[in-house]
Amino acid sequence: MANVLRNSAKFGFSGVLSQLSIHSRHGRECVSPCFSLQQRNSSTSPKIKVDLDNSTGVAVLRMQSPPVNSLSLDFLTEFCINLEKLEMDKSCRGLIITSTLSKVFSAGLDIMEMYGKSPERCGEFWKAVQEMWLKLYGSNMATIAAINGSSPAGGCLMSIGCDYRIMADNPRYSIGLNETQLGIVAPFWFKDTLVNTVGNRAAELSLELGLLYSAPDALKIGLVDQLVPEDQVFSTAQDTMSKWLAVPDHARQITKSMMRKQTIDKLLSNREADITNFVSFITKDSIQRSLRMYLEMLKSRKA
Amino acid sequence: MANVLRNSAKFGFSGVLSQLSIHSRHGRECVSPCFSLQQRNSSTSPKIKVDLDNSTGVAVLRMQSPPVNSLSLDFLTEFCINLEKLEMDKSCRGLIITSTLSKVFSAGLDIMEMYGKSPERCGEFWKAVQEMWLKLYGSNMATIAAINGSSPAGGCLMSIGCDYRIMADNPRYSIGLNETQLGIVAPFWFKDTLVNTVGNRAAELSLELGLLYSAPDALKIGLVDQLVPEDQVFSTAQDTMSKWLAVPDHARQITKSMMRKQTIDKLLSNREADITNFVSFITKDSIQRSLRMYLEMLKSRKA
Amino acid sequence: MANVLRNSAKFGFSGVLSQLSIHSRHGRECVSPCFSLQQRNSSTSPKIKVDLDNSTGVAVLRMQSPPVNSLSLDFLTEFCINLEKLEMDKSCRGLIITSTLSKVFSAGLDIMEMYGKSPERCGEFWKAVQEMWLKLYGSNMATIAAINGSSPAGGCLMSIGCDYRIMADNPRYSIGLNETQLGIVAPFWFKDTLVNTVGNRAAELSLELGLLYSAPDALKIGLVDQLVPEDQVFSTAQDTMSKWLAVPDHARQITKSMMRKQTIDKLLSNREADITNFVSFITKDSIQRSLRMYLEMLKSRKA
Repeated sequence: MANVLRNSAKFGFSGVLSQLSIHSRHGRECVSPCFSLQQRNSSTSPKIKVDLDNSTGVAVLRMQSPPVNSLSLDFLTEFCINLEKLEMDKSCRGLIITSTLSKVFSAGLDIMEMYGKSPERCGEFWKAVQEMWLKLYGSNMATIAAINGSSPAGGCLMSIGCDYRIMADNPRYSIGLNETQLGIVAPFWFKDTLVNTVGNRAAELSLELGLLYSAPDALKIGLVDQLVPEDQVFSTAQDTMSKWLAVPDHARQITKSMMRKQTIDKLLSNREADITNFVSFITKDSIQRSLRMYLEMLKSRKA
Repeated sequence: MANVLRNSAKFGFSGVLSQLSIHSRHGRECVSPCFSLQQRNSSTSPKIKVDLDNSTGVAVLRMQSPPVNSLSLDFLTEFCINLEKLEMDKSCRGLIITSTLSKVFSAGLDIMEMYGKSPERCGEFWKAVQEMWLKLYGSNMATIAAINGSSPAGGCLMSIGCDYRIMADNPRYSIGLNETQLGIVAPFWFKDTLVNTVGNRAAELSLELGLLYSAPDALKIGLVDQLVPEDQVFSTAQDTMSKWLAVPDHARQITKSMMRKQTIDKLLSNREADITNFVSFITKDSIQRSLRMYLEMLKSRKA
Repeated sequence: MANVLRNSAKFGFSGVLSQLSIHSRHGRECVSPCFSLQQRNSSTSPKIKVDLDNSTGVAVLRMQSPPVNSLSLDFLTEFCINLEKLEMDKSCRGLIITSTLSKVFSAGLDIMEMYGKSPERCGEFWKAVQEMWLKLYGSNMATIAAINGSSPAGGCLMSIGCDYRIMADNPRYSIGLNETQLGIVAPFWFKDTLVNTVGNRAAELSLELGLLYSAPDALKIGLVDQLVPEDQVFSTAQDTMSKWLAVPDHARQITKSMMRKQTIDKLLSNREADITNFVSFITKDSIQRSLRMYLEMLKSRKA
């Protein structure tokens, strides 16, 4: 176990996701890798790097916020601004999302945004999480997640928000909406997106147990579309993108909207209630106590 | 054929489910194993035995109503009372449902409750069937069906009302909502539960043809989650339950409700109409004639 | 390539479906096999032949409109009249739909009905497409598609409108709703029928990319139910039909309606808007230009 923890310290906690088990009935001692403890980077260097190839119309968005591409408010804001810029750029037709970090795509929502924060701040954070999903799930671009590492919780949400998912064929990498394991509940739009991707029963099992799937298991249930050797994830994403862009854009876009509009509209018409719901849940004493214990455990591991 | 019938007599008619075929267009000569002919047990011994292990928080509900655990009004009433007691008991977190009988989990609704009964009695019976499903599908407990024998019709409904299904790996055991084979129609909430479990297309095929699936086929379409050797069904259910109880209860419960609430609400808001619908259908002369012929055939087999 | 085109000329363009690729972003140069160029047959011989076997109650509807059973307004009108006759005939309980042509089941909607036609005529045509689907998807008969050749676009819609699909086990035959490849958008009821058949995610991928599936791939995603050697497609359909007719009709019919009513009602209550939508789309200059280029390409191939 000590060894596992030492390894995990290198790349956030994604690597130990599947080893962790929850013994508390009330979730108070829950430890979880879907949130990450990270030092705030005081540098102003961007957490995200975007390159648009004008000859192909394909943009690559690289998440480069060590140690584990946690989805902090800053990160999400940067992500949404970049997405909006690309969306407005008529020359951009496709988007590949990947990570520059070793072994992790994104470890999900940043726990520091939820611990000891004011309700206002929590609400602002949750609104940014909603915005990320709304922009991604409803994007006019063809979007491909090149999942070159673990992708729990919010990282999984980002992945299933894309049109297609290619994952590194490494059983050590895992993906899933594992919030339940932490005593947290994935909101209805996380659930709807998962049901749309893997069907009702697999989503039910997955969400009730907070399951993380190894890459091979994720392929089996359809949580990802394709596995390739780790060093071919990006090139496969590029090849796949050219197939997506061979389809006339307007027909693909109308079709995509037809498939996803209902799910998106459901959040749009319940957005404030969803924020209120999140804030009242996350600011509960019992949940804050869980988060504090989790943070203390992470600190003691680092020491 | 004679041999088949002789064998079937030993354990109700579950064993011949897959051999039976229906040749009547109008369902009048339909024979079916989803209803069972049984002598009313005059003893007051309970049809159901419940044991709660306070150290684990896991209750085991054993159906012990020979010959085939038919779901009579008495059985259903006892079942619901037991379920309600466990639901109220804060120390009970998980429920395993199994059968003490050889070769059968439950043969489904008791035909004697539907033949020659007053509309009032039929309505009372159907309300109890609804109640069983409502309590089970919406239970706050983690529920596992340890399916150690055949489980047609109502037995299948009970199984898919649980959170997880483990079945004996025996191709002679079958499971399915085979009502259509008998000229009966599974109501919308049977259908909704099946769609939630195996998806729309498998449910469509299954319900239109009234299919019974052997255990291996049931696994293939996702009607059960796991097959194990017959003597390991119960121990596997116990092991699996400990995994379910490792998840924080409140998060699992909220998630389960999010997954199932819509389906449950649909029956709750149409409950009376559904009873009226069943009663008017089952009391039809043509249906009653079918039931009588079926009962006479069962009697002649026993003789 | 020349060889491919020469071969394709023999049997419409179904045979090259999978080889064609779309390079235009705006769909203007799109070529597609879902529409077919055909000489209007001036003969008054019927495009459809129907035989009803009164001893079995099974009708066989053979599409015999060379070269590729295009769904023209005449064809659809004849199809609907035949379907209605059978529906009214109490002695007819089952319907098998197949093709007399070599290598093609149906190539889908006739492009000539959409090119250079008045809005009124386009609307009349689209109404007939709706009618075909409404009659088929909601039929009281047990319906089996004996798919003995390629079946793109409208041919696929006809197939998934049936209760069961048996396809020739030939990887050269393909099936799918490939409209998007042509810059056309499959309307919501095509989409709903596909989702009901293969689930949400497979439908999403299929429709956004306008995928055509080879027979083996179609089986894998559940777009067809069974593959058999080409010379056994029809006899297997007959055998399968006898199993469907062994189920009491009234129970199967009520069950089928329960499964499909919601999808059918959605079109019924949006029928006029769906026609308006189609007409305004298909009569656009950009779409008409695409169709003209496509037609010219087909002519040059024939020359």
